[in-house]
Parts: sequence; structure tokens; C-alpha cells
Amino acid sequence: MKNFTSVTDVEDPIALIKKAALCKKSPFENDHLGKHKTLGLIFFNPSLRTRLSTQRAAYNLGMNVIVMNIDKDSWKLEFEDGQIMNSDKAEHVKEAVAVMSQYCDLLGVRTFPGLVNRDEDYSEFILNQFIKYSSVPIISLESATLHPLQSLADMLTIDELKIVKPKIVLTWAPHIRALPQAVSNSFVEWCKASQADITVTCPEGFELSPEFMEGVKLEHNQKEAFKGADIIYAKNWSSFNDYGKIGQNLDHWIVDQEKMNLTNQAKFMHCLPVRRNLVVSDEVLDSSIVIEEANNRTYAAQAVLQEFLTSMK
Amino acid sequence: MKNFTSVTDVEDPIALIKKAALCKKSPFENDHLGKHKTLGLIFFNPSLRTRLSTQRAAYNLGMNVIVMNIDKDSWKLEFEDGQIMNSDKAEHVKEAVAVMSQYCDLLGVRTFPGLVNRDEDYSEFILNQFIKYSSVPIISLESATLHPLQSLADMLTIDELKIVKPKIVLTWAPHIRALPQAVSNSFVEWCKASQADITVTCPEGFELSPEFMEGVKLEHNQKEAFKGADIIYAKNWSSFNDYGKIGQNLDHWIVDQEKMNLTNQAKFMHCLPVRRNLVVSDEVLDSSIVIEEANNRTYAAQAVLQEFLTSMK
Amino acid sequence: MKNFTSVTDVEDPIALIKKAALCKKSPFENDHLGKHKTLGLIFFNPSLRTRLSTQRAAYNLGMNVIVMNIDKDSWKLEFEDGQIMNSDKAEHVKEAVAVMSQYCDLLGVRTFPGLVNRDEDYSEFILNQFIKYSSVPIISLESATLHPLQSLADMLTIDELKIVKPKIVLTWAPHIRALPQAVSNSFVEWCKASQADITVTCPEGFELSPEFMEGVKLEHNQKEAFKGADIIYAKNWSSFNDYGKIGQNLDHWIVDQEKMNLTNQAKFMHCLPVRRNLVVSDEVLDSSIVIEEANNRTYAAQAVLQEFLTSMK
Repeated sequence: MKNFTSVTDVEDPIALIKKAALCKKSPFENDHLGKHKTLGLIFFNPSLRTRLSTQRAAYNLGMNVIVMNIDKDSWKLEFEDGQIMNSDKAEHVKEAVAVMSQYCDLLGVRTFPGLVNRDEDYSEFILNQFIKYSSVPIISLESATLHPLQSLADMLTIDELKIVKPKIVLTWAPHIRALPQAVSNSFVEWCKASQADITVTCPEGFELSPEFMEGVKLEHNQKEAFKGADIIYAKNWSSFNDYGKIGQNLDHWIVDQEKMNLTNQAKFMHCLPVRRNLVVSDEVLDSSIVIEEANNRTYAAQAVLQEFLTSMK
Repeated sequence: MKNFTSVTDVEDPIALIKKAALCKKSPFENDHLGKHKTLGLIFFNPSLRTRLSTQRAAYNLGMNVIVMNIDKDSWKLEFEDGQIMNSDKAEHVKEAVAVMSQYCDLLGVRTFPGLVNRDEDYSEFILNQFIKYSSVPIISLESATLHPLQSLADMLTIDELKIVKPKIVLTWAPHIRALPQAVSNSFVEWCKASQADITVTCPEGFELSPEFMEGVKLEHNQKEAFKGADIIYAKNWSSFNDYGKIGQNLDHWIVDQEKMNLTNQAKFMHCLPVRRNLVVSDEVLDSSIVIEEANNRTYAAQAVLQEFLTSMK
Repeated sequence: MKNFTSVTDVEDPIALIKKAALCKKSPFENDHLGKHKTLGLIFFNPSLRTRLSTQRAAYNLGMNVIVMNIDKDSWKLEFEDGQIMNSDKAEHVKEAVAVMSQYCDLLGVRTFPGLVNRDEDYSEFILNQFIKYSSVPIISLESATLHPLQSLADMLTIDELKIVKPKIVLTWAPHIRALPQAVSNSFVEWCKASQADITVTCPEGFELSPEFMEGVKLEHNQKEAFKGADIIYAKNWSSFNDYGKIGQNLDHWIVDQEKMNLTNQAKFMHCLPVRRNLVVSDEVLDSSIVIEEANNRTYAAQAVLQEFLTSMK
């Protein structure tokens, strides 16, 4: 594994999920692996779960951690080549990443999409600049279009339910702000790699990018989609087609108990943070598995770190 | 001890003060206790001493530490139940705390009062939400109405003076901003638990809450109060009665050498940060024990952490 | 060594450069030295390289690290004595530093100049307040007028080139903002202490302070200066004479390939961050040694930390 930015970076996704389960069972078994190794966590955007769980994972492996909020701790970076750098951007990503990767053995980076220029976002411009200029492996802490650490934790969470071939439904949910498609893209990608039975339900016009929808069942009728589901995974995302558009007058897409009653006693999942009574009702959230799902973030990150550390030995 | 938020959480306060003294004597004796344990420090408000001393205490015990400034590193939290979360608050405290407490073995939290709604502040609404939703013990890094780590350090500092039954005077002092009553409430609470001889002196209308004033001598004449004192503990606080009000035209409440001359060669204490020549004169501060008092913050925190770590074994 | 703020603090600069080279060769050989020791890094100003490389250096030695951004994590400090502190500054440096130095075994501090009051900047007022009130050694992470960790890394970088008595040229370069003279002053200071052959080239009126120019060759014709150079070290700085003034209409001072062609196949150095195509052309920067120079920051910091740790045993 050269970097961890997508399920396609992973040789054997099923094996990685199993490794995450082992990390959860014996979190400190490999606490020698990280000796003298430093993980750098670079945030262009806010973070709670990723920030904390990845640090915890690194500590479980005996690593040191350096956290840095770009802009707040440092200064703005220039990403375009060939510029005369006379604006507010004090350093080019080329130097910044080359340098940071010398001080760290692994680099994690979080970089959200602008949700304005679809081609730029979907080219993973910033993440790829990091990969290009880093001398060490890059771990995505959520990029413009994918969030693989979340998905790996999601797969572990589903695995733990021990349901044979569960019917998984990814449902669009309402929100007041334009959110990335990253979590949803990534969830679909990992479901497909795990040969899971995955259906996407969303309002018309809110389908994910064709590359992610390919091979996935699509059902615009949310209640129809919920029937017989074993897992409801809710997430808002802004439109891919009408790029970055927020859903209007779609508050009835909330996941509530009435809809959950249509399912096969499905477990409710969400990556968090979640807006209560907008995305999901209190009732549904309070009997969900989102807290354990978040707990699994530590072991997803630990499995990935361990994979890299082992290959360094 | 389930949590550490008040002297009432502590089974034997005197024993805890002794434990802090032992930590100071041999800071690294228990450096194995924190192995594989992570302390999370969550700040809703700025901090210098608490931030640094608690980290140092954790390191002395071999713990890992994760520090997080809510709002700056993450996003705003919703604390009210039953809300439709369509404002600027992206996550409910219920999920945030449940999740953070999975990544950490102990959680410290600093949350100041709003000084607008007295009932809300004195209900310790935010702190109690943390306690309610956390799966691990909560350590107060100063809450709306109490600052027990400061008080424990204060008690250690007083103990080190080896004065038999010292006369302790807590004096109100001037300030330009509305400050919490937390440090003062807490100091009184710990003095009472230690059966100390404690007098509060303040302008009329600046008495602490009745629950804290109960059993404490009150003297509105500052100079009268100072007579024969062995320890002068100065602190500004805004009014409890006229909630959050700042003292006007009360600059003569400054602690200066003339007033100190009325005492029994009293030692001057303050929790810091302190505004020179407003709260206390340069002369008095420069011959005070505030630096050693701040030093004791490390060992107060260490004693509390050690107490929790020991009970986890 | 009592503190590390200038080459003049170092008994044997050449030996320290050699020590940095040894740290690079065997980074973990002294990982026991930092046991139970905590490094505090205090930033009044942003930082990328210094922040990360110094943390890494401390980890290589087995130290713990506490990082604090003053103002963001804490509050503003008062530096003047005798003030009635009724402004926005909540704590005097006297208490803040005395206290911080109790929680840490070594304190690093970054504090930039105001570039308004030359006497104040060149008195190193803030840094000296830290030295005055700290009970532990102070390491400059760049002060108003010097940046010795950068210079030590620069000397190591030059040493690694194994050029006998290289001709070193420090060239002024264009910029859009008023920058400190610190890196340039410090570079000259270390070159002189190493008996290097150092020439400064800059527009008239941009000479460094007389104390640094003394014993250094000065050449206002940039192309003339470049002839036969083995090392071109570029840096912008604002005027010392017309204090803080930015150079106007001086964009032709950029270092480009045409000018580099005048040299003896000189290596290009810069402390970073660098503004491409303003300070230096893409072409020159992309074939430079700035990345390795930045890498050496870790080993410069490690040599200094090791020096202090050894003397504590």
C-alpha cells in the first residue's frame, strides 16, 4: 500500500477490515511498531473524530504525533504552479509538503472540497499535490471526494453485526448547508469492494457521480428503499449534477421511526457529526449504533497505520 | 471517585492533598501507571496554567495527551435536547462527548459560565452534560462555578507553609471585566472541607452564593479582615446577587503593602493570571508565593490523575 | 550553554555543527536522554518548519512536548513593568514565564519583531523578558533579530557540501511584505563564527545593522557578487536604516538562472517559506538544496536539545 486515499489503494480490503477487528480486540499488541515513528496530522478543515481517533490509534501503536492546523498554526499555501507568489499565500505546497514529509514517517491530511468547481474537486487536486510532493505515505483524513478511514470503520461496524449478506441502504438526508459527497462516495466504494448488497436512495438530481452509482441499486422512493433493509446509513450530500446545490423543501427525507418501521429492524448508522431532528429524529438516533461506529474509527486508523508501519520494518 | 468536579467528589480531601505532596516529592515514581492511557483535554475557553500543568502531570505518569480547543479545532456544539439542529451548531453534545470518551481514558473539560443566566450557570449545565454522556471519568479544568484543581493546589500550598491553623482571608479585588465566582467558590469549599479558619471580605453586594458563604466568616471591612491574617488569597469575582455585575469605583480594594502590614506577615496567594496594580500592587505580588502556588498545579493534577489511574488497574 | 539565542551563546559553534551531523547519522542513539523531560514550545507567531522539526527532534531524544500558541490558546501578555493592567492584557510576562518554566525543562519561544521601533526590536525586549523570568534555559525559535536554529541547520547544510572554503553570498531578494532581518543577521553571525568567506549583496539602503556587516564583504552590484560564488543564500529583509521599509521597484533582484550562471555552479539556499518567482525563479528553486536544508532543521534542534539535556544529567 503506497498511500491510503481510497479503497483502490488497498490490496485486500476484506483483510484490512479483519485487521481492524484484531486491533480492537488487542489494541496494544503492537505497541512496539511505532517506536521512533512520528505521524503528522495536517488539517485544512475542522475535525473531531478523525483528529482524536487517529491520535489514539497512533498512541496505541507507540507512535508520536504532531498535529498542525494549516492557516491557524502556519500560513496559507499556494497550490498552482508557475505563479508569481505576491498574494497572501506565503508558501508553495511543493516545499511545504516536501518539508513536512521529512519530519514525519507518515502524513495524514484533511482537505475538503470547495463545492464550486466540480472538476477540480473530483481531480483531488490538493490531495494529489500532497501525494506528489511527499516522500512518505499519505493517509487521507477525508479528501474532496472520499473518506476511506470512515468507510473502513463503517465496514468493521457492519461486520460486527454478523448479519449474513445484509441489505444496506444509503439514504440521502436533509441539511441546511452544502456538504461534500465524500462520505457517501466512499461508503459506496467500500460496499462494492466488499460485494455488499447496497442501495442508494435520494431525491432525483441527488444521485452520486456515475462512477460511484455504477453497479449500485438506485431507488428514488425512500420508503420503498427502506423495506427489508438491515442497515440504514444516512448522510446528506449536496448535488453532484447541479454541483454543490443544497436540497430545497426536502425536509421530509429525514429518517424517523415510521420509516425505520418499514425495515427489517435495521440498524441506523451515520458518520457524525449529525444534526438531530433534521437528518434523523432523536428516537432513531438514540437507539442507533453511531457511537460504536465512531468507536471503530480508532481501530480503522490503527489497522491502516499498522499496515504502513509493518512495511517500514 | 467517579468524577473530579468538586471537593464533594473526593472521599478524603486531606488524603488527596497528602498525595499531591508525595507527587511533588517523587514526580516519576508512578510513571508506569499511565501506560496505554490517554488523557483528553477539552477547552471551551482559554487556558495557560491548567493546559500546561495538566499535560505535565499526565506525562509524569506516562500518559498520552490529546488537547482539543472546541470551536477552533472542531465546531460548535448543541447542548439543548429536542432541538431541530438547523443553526450553526453542527453536533449535539450527546454524540460529541460519548464519542470523545471512547477515544480517551479520562476527559478533562474547561467550560466557563455565561454570567448572564445564573440558574443555568449554577446548574453546571454543560459540565453535567459531559458527565451524563461520558463513559469515562470527567475532570473539571474549571467549570461555571468551581475550579477544584486550583483549590487542591492552593491547599497543598497552604499545607507547605506549615502554619498551625492559619487565619485565611479570601479578599475580593478590583477588575475591569466580569469574572466567574468559580475560583472563590471552590477555595471556600476546600477550606471548609479542610476545617480551615476562613474569612471572606468583599464589598457589600459581592458576597458569594449562600451555599458557599454558609459557615464562613464575612467581613465587609477589608482592613479589619486583614488584621492577624496568615494568608491573604485575593481574587476578583462578579456579583452573585446582581448576577454578573462588575464592581464600580472599587479600585481601593486593591491589595497593597499598607494593607498587608495589618496582617500577621501573611503570605499573598492568587490563582493567576493576575492584573498587576489593579488586583494587587507590584510590591505585594513580587514577594508573594503565587509562583510556587502555580507550580503546585502540576502535583494537584497528578494526584487526581493518579487516583483515577489506580482505580482502573 | 545557558540559553540558545545567538551564536554567541555557543561555546564552540563548530563542535555544535558536528554534533548536529552526528544526530543526523544516528537520530535515536540518545533516545534515553529526554526521559521525564518536557519541552515547551511557545509561539507568538506562526511556524511550520520550526514547529514540526523541533517537535521531531525532541521525540528523537525521548522528550515530551507541549505546544502553545499564545493569544489563541491563552491570552495577551503585558511586557511593560509598573503598568496598571486595565487593558486587554490579562497576564504579565513575569508570572507567565515564571510559571511556564516550572512546567517545562526547556522552553522554546518564537517572537517576531514589530518592525516599527528599531531600538525595542534590537534590544530583544520580549526574548530577554523570557530569559529574565524563566527558571529553565530558553531556546530561540526565532526572535526579533536572530534565528539561530535556522543558521545552525544552514551551517550543517554547507558543511555537508564538503566544499573547501566556499564563497558564500547572501543576497537580498524582493518581497511584498516587511520581513524581519533575523534570518540574515543570524546567517552572517554564524558564517563569521565559522570563519566562512561571506559576502552580502543588497540594494543601497538595505545593508544589515553595522554590528552584523562588520567584517563582511559588501557588494551592491548583485551580478558582481554572484561571480564565482559556491553558495547563494537568498532572503528578503526590510530596511534596517529606514527601519521596516519594504524595497520598492526592486523585483529585478530576483534570483534567476541567468544570475546563477555567473556563479561557480553554486548551490541555492533559502530558509523557507519562499515566494516562487518573486524571491527566486521556479527553475533555480527546483534544482536547489532547500529541502535538505529544511531537513537539517531537525538535527540542528536535536543537537541543541541534546546539549541542554546532557548538562542536566
